[in-house]
Amino acid sequence: MTRTVIESKTKTVTIGFDEPFCVIGERINPTGRKKLAAELEMDDFSTIERDALEQVACGAMVLDVNSGAVFTNKMAEDPRYADNNFVEPMLMKQLIEKVQALVDVPLCIDSSVPGALKNGLEMAEGRPLLNSVTGEEERLELVLPLVKKYNVPVVAISNDDTGISEDPDVRFAVAKKIVERAADFGIPAHDIVVDPLVMPIGAMATAGQQVFTLVRRLRDELGVNTTCGASNVSFGLPHRHGVNAAFLPMAIGAGMTSAIMNPVRSVEMEAIRAANLLMNHDPNGGEWIKFSRVLDAVAEGASFAEASQASTSAGSGRRRRRRG
Amino acid sequence: MTRTVIESKTKTVTIGFDEPFCVIGERINPTGRKKLAAELEMDDFSTIERDALEQVACGAMVLDVNSGAVFTNKMAEDPRYADNNFVEPMLMKQLIEKVQALVDVPLCIDSSVPGALKNGLEMAEGRPLLNSVTGEEERLELVLPLVKKYNVPVVAISNDDTGISEDPDVRFAVAKKIVERAADFGIPAHDIVVDPLVMPIGAMATAGQQVFTLVRRLRDELGVNTTCGASNVSFGLPHRHGVNAAFLPMAIGAGMTSAIMNPVRSVEMEAIRAANLLMNHDPNGGEWIKFSRVLDAVAEGASFAEASQASTSAGSGRRRRRRG
Repeated sequence: MTRTVIESKTKTVTIGFDEPFCVIGERINPTGRKKLAAELEMDDFSTIERDALEQVACGAMVLDVNSGAVFTNKMAEDPRYADNNFVEPMLMKQLIEKVQALVDVPLCIDSSVPGALKNGLEMAEGRPLLNSVTGEEERLELVLPLVKKYNVPVVAISNDDTGISEDPDVRFAVAKKIVERAADFGIPAHDIVVDPLVMPIGAMATAGQQVFTLVRRLRDELGVNTTCGASNVSFGLPHRHGVNAAFLPMAIGAGMTSAIMNPVRSVEMEAIRAANLLMNHDPNGGEWIKFSRVLDAVAEGASFAEASQASTSAGSGRRRRRRG
Repeated sequence: MTRTVIESKTKTVTIGFDEPFCVIGERINPTGRKKLAAELEMDDFSTIERDALEQVACGAMVLDVNSGAVFTNKMAEDPRYADNNFVEPMLMKQLIEKVQALVDVPLCIDSSVPGALKNGLEMAEGRPLLNSVTGEEERLELVLPLVKKYNVPVVAISNDDTGISEDPDVRFAVAKKIVERAADFGIPAHDIVVDPLVMPIGAMATAGQQVFTLVRRLRDELGVNTTCGASNVSFGLPHRHGVNAAFLPMAIGAGMTSAIMNPVRSVEMEAIRAANLLMNHDPNGGEWIKFSRVLDAVAEGASFAEASQASTSAGSGRRRRRRG
């Protein structure tokens, strides 16, 4: 039985075929969020803190922490800031410190910069998920030793030195190569979470079927857990949340076990909660019934984040009082 | 390639593995609708007519016509009305006449009364779907000769003389028996649409997984199309449309090719349209984009039926003008 264990100081999350779908919150990511990057440049972490609390309240079980900021003002003053190898390692430390002080879920350390990955691994309590290795030679040689040294699980993205193949068989072969190379380092398959790469259905009509087939093969033939950037599938389409909300249950039905996604969107989270129930990963429907009360509050005018936070506080009332 | 062909006088609908999911509208059914039964008893077909038009506008590709009415007032006057073998054959004729006069989609003739099935087969233009045969001996001997004589496809429900088994292997065996018995009558497997029976997930936690596994087996091992009463899965649960809207894409991903359902519900229809897109059964996303305009109108305050009817009229404007 494939179980990928991720830990914070106090919480354990298991990604597995017989576990509820693991929602990895994607919001702590300054890439493409100019306003957030500008805040971080000014040492303002208020958005990060709100994003951390909201995502956990809305159901994120793990938080991705991405340090991919471009600090344009500082860059003008100091040319070292033009280099991500300079910016990201510092920022990763700060981000993890802030997030860990606020929420107790495990983290996913996300960067293309080796120094940021190392700093993240040093800072993170427990057993974080590392994001990511690819099939690129340089990346394999750089990231797998870190995975081995820190004994952490890793996201493996199925592209290699030739780029992202449109052929799903090639993407499967890349995933297989990463799993085999990891084994050479003594890293077991259950610590590899493969991202088969989700293409936009608007650009490639077979994108959905590719993923469903790949997920099933990755599970049956390699015995690995899987993840994806779920919202990619609906890129460029109208009413894309509706597409995502069908894609996620279909991927879960095919065997997908986690996704890196925005948990502050009720439509997608409703689809995942319902899929957990339908996969028999919600014993007695307790989670669905709790979630349906959040939906009731949303129907009465609350935002999904507000309603989720109110529900979480109500649920943890006893513990909170004890702590107080 | 399994293709179940259903026809009205002018329209052909194909249920198949490479076709968009076939939505069979369930609304024309007085069973459990007391108000509707009372109207029919008074020869008032206005609700039936509205249901027919609305369902087709909302995306039903086939309309189920069920004659299961209980005429309590007439029963008090005339004891013959206590017998469904007296009531349903007459009513089926009337229902089909009314529906056929209004809409041009193929029909699904739905009754437990042999006389009603026969009258339905006589009245329906084209090649209707017959609903249903079961694995019960009496039913097999009664319905299969009609299927053969009229050369129509039939819904096969996987229960038999022992009832509905909770064991999916037994339900598979019943389906297999029906397909084999049909073959003895010269009826090909592509004219059998198996309903594997969907249990409420609230009562049986494995209900979802049972259906997904059964659908895959029915397709791979018997080569048959499948259908179900989709809303059954969420019986008794809060926010049941959310459960249905995850169930349908998961069932479609597993290979389900049709459902008997309420198409006047936007949540479920959105899930099906998105699943069609993700299965590559919506070339260039044209249907999704058209449907997204209906969702826009709903967001602006229209009912789903109104918005769908407006969209249908706009789409068929040219044809309408020509006819006029």
